[in-house]
Amino acid sequence: MPLLDLLLEAGNLKKLPRTGWLLRGVPNPESIADHSYRVALITLFLADELREKDIEIDVERALKIALIHDLAEARVTDIPLSAQYYLDKGKAEKKAAMELFIKTPNPREYFRLWREYEEGLSREGRLVKFADKLEMLIQACEYERAGFSNLDEFWKTLDYLHESEFYGHFKELIEGLVKRRKGK
Amino acid sequence: MPLLDLLLEAGNLKKLPRTGWLLRGVPNPESIADHSYRVALITLFLADELREKDIEIDVERALKIALIHDLAEARVTDIPLSAQYYLDKGKAEKKAAMELFIKTPNPREYFRLWREYEEGLSREGRLVKFADKLEMLIQACEYERAGFSNLDEFWKTLDYLHESEFYGHFKELIEGLVKRRKGK
Amino acid sequence: MPLLDLLLEAGNLKKLPRTGWLLRGVPNPESIADHSYRVALITLFLADELREKDIEIDVERALKIALIHDLAEARVTDIPLSAQYYLDKGKAEKKAAMELFIKTPNPREYFRLWREYEEGLSREGRLVKFADKLEMLIQACEYERAGFSNLDEFWKTLDYLHESEFYGHFKELIEGLVKRRKGK
Amino acid sequence: MPLLDLLLEAGNLKKLPRTGWLLRGVPNPESIADHSYRVALITLFLADELREKDIEIDVERALKIALIHDLAEARVTDIPLSAQYYLDKGKAEKKAAMELFIKTPNPREYFRLWREYEEGLSREGRLVKFADKLEMLIQACEYERAGFSNLDEFWKTLDYLHESEFYGHFKELIEGLVKRRKGK
Amino acid sequence: MPLLDLLLEAGNLKKLPRTGWLLRGVPNPESIADHSYRVALITLFLADELREKDIEIDVERALKIALIHDLAEARVTDIPLSAQYYLDKGKAEKKAAMELFIKTPNPREYFRLWREYEEGLSREGRLVKFADKLEMLIQACEYERAGFSNLDEFWKTLDYLHESEFYGHFKELIEGLVKRRKGK
Amino acid sequence: MPLLDLLLEAGNLKKLPRTGWLLRGVPNPESIADHSYRVALITLFLADELREKDIEIDVERALKIALIHDLAEARVTDIPLSAQYYLDKGKAEKKAAMELFIKTPNPREYFRLWREYEEGLSREGRLVKFADKLEMLIQACEYERAGFSNLDEFWKTLDYLHESEFYGHFKELIEGLVKRRKGK
Repeated sequence: MPLLDLLLEAGNLKKLPRTGWLLRGVPNPESIADHSYRVALITLFLADELREKDIEIDVERALKIALIHDLAEARVTDIPLSAQYYLDKGKAEKKAAMELFIKTPNPREYFRLWREYEEGLSREGRLVKFADKLEMLIQACEYERAGFSNLDEFWKTLDYLHESEFYGHFKELIEGLVKRRKGK
Repeated sequence: MPLLDLLLEAGNLKKLPRTGWLLRGVPNPESIADHSYRVALITLFLADELREKDIEIDVERALKIALIHDLAEARVTDIPLSAQYYLDKGKAEKKAAMELFIKTPNPREYFRLWREYEEGLSREGRLVKFADKLEMLIQACEYERAGFSNLDEFWKTLDYLHESEFYGHFKELIEGLVKRRKGK
Repeated sequence: MPLLDLLLEAGNLKKLPRTGWLLRGVPNPESIADHSYRVALITLFLADELREKDIEIDVERALKIALIHDLAEARVTDIPLSAQYYLDKGKAEKKAAMELFIKTPNPREYFRLWREYEEGLSREGRLVKFADKLEMLIQACEYERAGFSNLDEFWKTLDYLHESEFYGHFKELIEGLVKRRKGK
Repeated sequence: MPLLDLLLEAGNLKKLPRTGWLLRGVPNPESIADHSYRVALITLFLADELREKDIEIDVERALKIALIHDLAEARVTDIPLSAQYYLDKGKAEKKAAMELFIKTPNPREYFRLWREYEEGLSREGRLVKFADKLEMLIQACEYERAGFSNLDEFWKTLDYLHESEFYGHFKELIEGLVKRRKGK
Repeated sequence: MPLLDLLLEAGNLKKLPRTGWLLRGVPNPESIADHSYRVALITLFLADELREKDIEIDVERALKIALIHDLAEARVTDIPLSAQYYLDKGKAEKKAAMELFIKTPNPREYFRLWREYEEGLSREGRLVKFADKLEMLIQACEYERAGFSNLDEFWKTLDYLHESEFYGHFKELIEGLVKRRKGK
Repeated sequence: MPLLDLLLEAGNLKKLPRTGWLLRGVPNPESIADHSYRVALITLFLADELREKDIEIDVERALKIALIHDLAEARVTDIPLSAQYYLDKGKAEKKAAMELFIKTPNPREYFRLWREYEEGLSREGRLVKFADKLEMLIQACEYERAGFSNLDEFWKTLDYLHESEFYGHFKELIEGLVKRRKGK
């Protein structure tokens, strides 16, 4: 029963911590699944807003990408930046993704969607990447409000958001986040 | 910035434990967001399979429902069964859901979707409920494999799955799960 | 064996986190039992001081109230403020308390004591409520000293203490706490 | 403000784990305060039952003893059996208790109560010791039901309960506990 | 101050969990540093025994190897087996080790020692590898005694121990471990 | 199999928290084994530097001392300062150390090494004590960078380092640490 195997493996995402927070001293930080959940939620609401501004966006496609974009980490784990210098994370996740998707009803479609995210091949893929970065910053903001420090490095990701094709549409949201951070 | 507020509140789902496991002695159990993530993933793959069997299913709709079905718990928390006897959880979540959805671009649509889940008004809503129960059983199976006991009660949910309109389509999956449990 | 059942259920209070801290990002915060323990201890010492000032106080009564005032949360859990807006916590705890007390040797007496706390019907009941609020502020002070922030909201409870009939007697204690907080 | 100091020190009991469970591999076990809370609760209900059987018992006295019996551990911590062979725990707790009680309104009374527990000088002191042992066994039963093993050693404490002057009164309760354990 | 940087980075080993246990559902498992500590301790005692049997062994060398054998994981993290299929862990750790050792007083010596472990180039290197496997099995035995299951896979490592040049010397120790496991 | 017993007991060092951090509100702080690991690592690198400055140092001896200096805590646990006022920790650890070392191949040698640390009888013993204090300060620095406060008291240990015979050799390292702390 390959699908059951896949769903059990996806359970790893609940157990595995996001290592970036862990290495900066946050005890019991969020899991990869915690993160993926809010990425999908953000993707949903941002897609809604884009549609209202008459930007064409395939919401189903975007949500699928959001849900599977970190699935390979069920095998590869959340390799932190300090390790990516030594490991070809992209290649590893690509291979792991392929082998995981074989257990789904439509391996090819999922691998295509995964590449849209990884390589930015579609607007939907790029939107999920935008949501992925945004989610991390919202989490950084929450940890800082709770009292954790040493998270400045994460905020460099703002540059990525500023240069994104979506920035204009979500400027208010991102500026709101920055303001909250300063207001702490 | 209402959407930012909503996304920050959704962060509660990462912090709040699923109380059913907690009360049975699982230390640091999964969060509500952990659960919601896999519910959405299951919904995705089951919807795929239904489509292949020519069952009409709106995947976008189903995924939206999966992502928001527990959102009200960001305010209401995961009220366990022992408390539901004393509290009108349904009513509370309904009101909280409404107030949360006001912060989204399309409050009415989301509330409509939420009701489809809660009241089983659409095939998509019922599919997410099926996925919600299935996710819980997969998690119970994982905890039991890890050594936790005292989880028999959860398996009564199998009855719900057996009686569902979807059971025929996913019989193999569910029987596979039961077999794994016994094989432990 | 109803009393054994009750004692086992009381074990839930050790497992359930105080959700107020959890939602503000304190990892692994105190349990409800942790809180209840210090409430009882505070009640004991405050009652002593009142007696020395010739204020009549029934210490046995006060301690009993302190020990059972959160017992209903063994079933209802610690419903946070964000949820109380949607749920009738008071009604739920009342019903749960009644059903739990049936398992004790003196259900009526315990329910009477519980109401003294909940409705402020006796000096002893009001003293425990005073101790309950004070305990929360001492805990907030400890978390802040440890580095957690985002807890300002809790300090609004000072108003309650200021207006209490007991404030005059414990002014020094409360001012001492506020001074410690500022001294951090 | 000595009383405030004492209450802050009592906060240590919430942070310190009960080392017996920790050393047998229970992750994040109960705190000393968790334990003390249920000891006090058990004392309360057992005292009620004794009274109904016309056994004279001073409930106020018993509850005071229950609340302070482990207070010295706020300084001394929960020294496990493996350490007691090398350390004079009794002497240490006695001295620490004395120094802590100086911060209360009635140091002598509290020290007297503490000795009633430690040396079994009064029926109330012995009842709290009975409750202390019983609480530990109820917790062992809960951990075993949750799946933890390696706790057989704790059950030797049954011998203490069997030989106690209170055994006859609470035979049903203790036999009920043993039955539950076997029924797991 | 390169050495200070190195010592701070080594702090990561205290924060990073051993992922093998994590993925099998052990909550809050040991850290990499926890593991490394006992590996060094085992190395020490096994080296002693070898010396008594007139096997030449350089204890200083062996201990140095034990202390640095997992140092590269401070950057690379504990890549689990499921990931090693996709990632060249060996190559990554080699490069990370080299770059970390540059911060020590004797980079070349440390890299040489590291290779002795990794490639089995010296008796001391092979002894540490033996100790590394043995440590894992002792930990597996402890987790199983505590109630965790699902750890059978780890015991395949017994084969490695059986085939080792050191097996004859530590047969009693290993058989003792296996007996304890069965006796659970 | 006495050595196996010893290695299993050493596993306690992985489970037992360093109580100093715990009492100041750090959730899930490092274990004793975590600490011991980095003490040994620091000892290794400091010994290297001493050798380069032509200070005679027996590295094997120093590493052995580092690895066993806290072994007695496997039985005695990490007695915090607040408890040492009431307990003769030194005497307890001495006796426990002796009884543990009987399980090793060379009890006398290990007890001799342990005394070199405890009583500062050799340069190697004093170096490990220096490393032990330094390790604690590096950890304090890490916790402070992560956001924890209330750790000023630990920094008094700087005085010990300043007065040590090794201070001149590692002045730069210690000043670097102090600078990092201020730079936070």
